Amino acid sequence: MISLDLKNIFSVGTTHGLAKKDLATSQKELVHLINAMHTRGQKFYSIVDDTAVLKQVQEFATRMRGKYQHIVVIGIGGSALGTICIHQALTHLYDNERTTRLHPTLHVLDNVDPTLYGEIEDVIDIKKTLFIVVSKSGNTAEALGPLLYFQQKVKQAKKNVQNHFITITHIGNGTLSELAEKEGIEQIEHGPVGGRFAVLSTVGLIPAALVGIDIKKLLAGAQDMRDIFLTPDAKTNLPYQIAKTQYALNRKGKSIAVMMPYAQKLLSFADWYRQLLAESIGKEVNDAGETVHTGITPVRALGTTDQHSQAQLYNEGPNDKLLMFMHVKKLHKTLRFPTLYTHHPKLGYLQGASMNDLMDAEREGTTAALTKRKRPNLTITIDTLDAYHLGALFLLFEGATALLGEMYGINAFNQPGVELAKKLTVTNLAKKRNK
Amino acid sequence: MISLDLKNIFSVGTTHGLAKKDLATSQKELVHLINAMHTRGQKFYSIVDDTAVLKQVQEFATRMRGKYQHIVVIGIGGSALGTICIHQALTHLYDNERTTRLHPTLHVLDNVDPTLYGEIEDVIDIKKTLFIVVSKSGNTAEALGPLLYFQQKVKQAKKNVQNHFITITHIGNGTLSELAEKEGIEQIEHGPVGGRFAVLSTVGLIPAALVGIDIKKLLAGAQDMRDIFLTPDAKTNLPYQIAKTQYALNRKGKSIAVMMPYAQKLLSFADWYRQLLAESIGKEVNDAGETVHTGITPVRALGTTDQHSQAQLYNEGPNDKLLMFMHVKKLHKTLRFPTLYTHHPKLGYLQGASMNDLMDAEREGTTAALTKRKRPNLTITIDTLDAYHLGALFLLFEGATALLGEMYGINAFNQPGVELAKKLTVTNLAKKRNK
Repeated sequence: MISLDLKNIFSVGTTHGLAKKDLATSQKELVHLINAMHTRGQKFYSIVDDTAVLKQVQEFATRMRGKYQHIVVIGIGGSALGTICIHQALTHLYDNERTTRLHPTLHVLDNVDPTLYGEIEDVIDIKKTLFIVVSKSGNTAEALGPLLYFQQKVKQAKKNVQNHFITITHIGNGTLSELAEKEGIEQIEHGPVGGRFAVLSTVGLIPAALVGIDIKKLLAGAQDMRDIFLTPDAKTNLPYQIAKTQYALNRKGKSIAVMMPYAQKLLSFADWYRQLLAESIGKEVNDAGETVHTGITPVRALGTTDQHSQAQLYNEGPNDKLLMFMHVKKLHKTLRFPTLYTHHPKLGYLQGASMNDLMDAEREGTTAALTKRKRPNLTITIDTLDAYHLGALFLLFEGATALLGEMYGINAFNQPGVELAKKLTVTNLAKKRNK
Repeated sequence: MISLDLKNIFSVGTTHGLAKKDLATSQKELVHLINAMHTRGQKFYSIVDDTAVLKQVQEFATRMRGKYQHIVVIGIGGSALGTICIHQALTHLYDNERTTRLHPTLHVLDNVDPTLYGEIEDVIDIKKTLFIVVSKSGNTAEALGPLLYFQQKVKQAKKNVQNHFITITHIGNGTLSELAEKEGIEQIEHGPVGGRFAVLSTVGLIPAALVGIDIKKLLAGAQDMRDIFLTPDAKTNLPYQIAKTQYALNRKGKSIAVMMPYAQKLLSFADWYRQLLAESIGKEVNDAGETVHTGITPVRALGTTDQHSQAQLYNEGPNDKLLMFMHVKKLHKTLRFPTLYTHHPKLGYLQGASMNDLMDAEREGTTAALTKRKRPNLTITIDTLDAYHLGALFLLFEGATALLGEMYGINAFNQPGVELAKKLTVTNLAKKRNK
């Protein structure tokens, strides 16, 4: 169960929040938005039904079982963030540090900092490692460079590259696929949906399955939310309600969206969402060709941690944010503070209380204080953080972001703004080499 | 050596950037700002000279050497972020995962999520752990609650709490100090400077020394930057130049400051800065008692990683940001991509190139593209990432933030906006317990 609480959007008043009528169920608008989105042909909401992919991933995971002690994913942006998120949310918080574990370690290298590559080797044994190189285009420098690097390392260790690499890419297109073919490396089809909407394709499912995640449940949660998302009923369509809130508040000057889960394991979910919102909505030109410079700047935060880092700004600074809190009803563990000092006047509120209640009380205190200061905030509640609910959360925000794009009349699925820097990088690197 | 490059602040034009005269050396203003800051009596820049503290920390670290396999810091906000930053920046990127290490593991628990506490025990042995409980006020729930919790755990393991806890707090004030006294736990004086300016006091130095950081060098770098900061020469005062840029651009509508180091090990530095800027500048009321709602929203980013997550927004979205890039001239490692495919048309730019050059080329490509789109950006360059330079970076931004506060005429050193939520938390928790 996922629910959305918008009462603090309404109760802060209409200067900084919304009136109920602003969010009044506009059946007609929702039908129009969903149709507009369908027209773009980016069926991110269909990949969750691909039983052939599910079977392929499960068979692959079975085939790989017990063969490796370490999985290293090489990729950046959408090739990395979903995997990092799933790993943090659904395994142990200190998964790679544990000495006993039923699955391999999982490291994601989503940078070309040489320090990262120099130091990862101290915690993996290349002879027992499977490298998964992910790039949809097959031409990303951050995937190809490390591939070259580790290919040489594997050869130096006198191992066959075929046994230590797989690629997830668009087979038959791009340099990555070409090299894989040349080297006899197994290729797994990336699928048609790109980067930030690809977490539930092979990109996210393959690493997830290798560390023992129930990917069927992940997809089941996504399917259920997808059904909610594609049903043109504004009263039940949670992605629409989130998008509509974001859009209407952005028009009222809320230029920043803070995502603040009260769950340590959802911190990387906020990072995943950060890419989704930033790249999808940050656009110079709309569908009509007008210069619009749309965009909402995402900020990731964490409760209760950031109460002691960001809450001062959120409470007293410019009223330019929509705060999106996330609440997990039943956390993985339940702990109780012991009663060690009976009748201590300053400890009474803690002793015998559960840590879970403290988390809840802090979240409620934080949202209440913000509301009192007329800072619009909403809360998304999930029953528990498992594969089913995480899958649903992915679709909740993918759906919201897709609809948000349609509200602005922009293409949420491209990223033309990064091409210039890529070109300049290649030129710059050539200059450095010729020095 | 630390240098500041402001050319892309000037070259984007005066609508979105600044004219050189906006930053013209105003000796008079700088003298006034420094004096105003001195008047507040928050001598964060003096703690770096405290040789008694340095000696105390070094002696403590010597006394503890070899006694523990695990260090767990319990604290939140300023009690945690500096330590996390130092640990990431100056030890191994996978420090806690390594099987051979000359110092204990270091974990910082800066949340009251029960999952964190339930799972940390799978990677530490409580019998071989030193818990460092940090809270200046001594009344923080996020420090006291976990203290109660682990105290019981230590007792259950039939160990003396005296051998497994120390506190860093204001001795003789607050509940934490009271409990420490009652239990015979060693207390280390927190010192007068609070939270986000406290990294170079015992708060950051004690954990740093325990994992082998050269704290003398950390302080030496800070001292050198402190001298630059307190010298009223606008031409050489880097903190002043940063503050002035931030202030002038904020007045031109740049409401967001992105800190984007091109160094994996500086990611947590951006988190540390995030608290410093948010809490110091996010204020409702100025010194004159006027309602001002000042504040710049900090965003942490990482190069090259976030080129594939945030750069689309930074390039094409609203022009509402100041981008602050950080460049480390000499990274810890130098790696070269091998030449495996001679004459491959699409790989030519990578093969034989160094990964370090690729990092640089990407940063230069990114800043050039942003500049072309009139997005104001500056770059801070350090020679290398060692204790000396990290110490200098701390003082660089602490100094900049203190001066920025004076420019707004606000108190950068308090945080009145979080009190309401704290009160509501206690009330909420009591209600839950009485249910």
